[in-house]
Amino acid sequence: MEFSSKLIESAVNNFSKLPGIGQKTALRLVLHLLKQEEDLTQDLSKALVDMRLNIKYCKKCHNISDDEICNICGNPVRDQSIICLVEDTRDVLAIENTSQYNGLYHVLGGIISPIEGIGPDDLTIDSLLSRVSSKESEVKEIILGLSSTMEGDTTAFYITKKVKPFGIKTSTIARGIPIGGELEYADEITLGRSIITRTAYDIED
Amino acid sequence: MEFSSKLIESAVNNFSKLPGIGQKTALRLVLHLLKQEEDLTQDLSKALVDMRLNIKYCKKCHNISDDEICNICGNPVRDQSIICLVEDTRDVLAIENTSQYNGLYHVLGGIISPIEGIGPDDLTIDSLLSRVSSKESEVKEIILGLSSTMEGDTTAFYITKKVKPFGIKTSTIARGIPIGGELEYADEITLGRSIITRTAYDIED
Repeated sequence: MEFSSKLIESAVNNFSKLPGIGQKTALRLVLHLLKQEEDLTQDLSKALVDMRLNIKYCKKCHNISDDEICNICGNPVRDQSIICLVEDTRDVLAIENTSQYNGLYHVLGGIISPIEGIGPDDLTIDSLLSRVSSKESEVKEIILGLSSTMEGDTTAFYITKKVKPFGIKTSTIARGIPIGGELEYADEITLGRSIITRTAYDIED
Repeated sequence: MEFSSKLIESAVNNFSKLPGIGQKTALRLVLHLLKQEEDLTQDLSKALVDMRLNIKYCKKCHNISDDEICNICGNPVRDQSIICLVEDTRDVLAIENTSQYNGLYHVLGGIISPIEGIGPDDLTIDSLLSRVSSKESEVKEIILGLSSTMEGDTTAFYITKKVKPFGIKTSTIARGIPIGGELEYADEITLGRSIITRTAYDIED
């Protein structure tokens, strides 16, 4: 696309470096900013640069945080005996939004993937091990909240082997038919596994 | 959505003020920026603020421009006798990208719409009239490149009436079946009009 203005061109080109934003969408966003007050653009720019330059990663769980220790690790009300291991920050947000979990997290920063050249040393596994092996550790269980892919399974296997010597139980989040999902549309592997790992169904008398 | 970081929250909230970007998309964009070099975020922010603060509108045609006169109005090769009247900058870009037009433009900045409270005075119609009535004007024709809606037709009618005293011909862009479109899927009004306004079909001998 050709623009009559270098300023527009530069703004569009920078916007379209973001995932899922092509040149047409970028142009729509840029023209929207032009129609609005200057403050909107300045606030957006400031918030992005502030965020990028000042964000910290929690020293304990490696989740993004405004301080050295994130407000999940620093919350004494949360269950200190259980850690949910996840791939990235988005997973933490997703689990937090369910309001079903009151333990701690550990953000791996990725997943073991030989194809992409990501090995155990590229992740925060050492930090996890020193976290669970320290004297003041109360951790009894690690929930493996990883993707159900070959890479996820490899990572789960590797970590389970590493934490076993510390007497820590590992579990994985349940795989099965999603709530509201219909059996006939489920794939065979999920359906097969959901029968094998069925859970007891109780009715109170 | 709840975020563990105020910085992330602020960036997401600012991003999601843009059209078509919800909180989930905004979070995806923000986390993408976090994974990339700081330069990407700083370049984007700088380009947006630069654009917003320094953009000018061409004094002749009101198109967005880096200078007082845009590079279309300032280009002596372009046909000075014809002006294409459009609603906004995006229309200029769309027509420019066809490479089928070599005249000038005039950006109205909107369209007459009593419902939205936009009257002729809110648009650049006065500027168009002084442009075509000036002594050095070479304009002979105005192409009405407006939307085919009631508001577009109203605006076209109003402007045609206004420029007639200056002996200027107006035309509208052709309405009809899109290239590659199939007759059976065309709506009745478009198809009906495309028969009435049919064009001569010549084959060279």
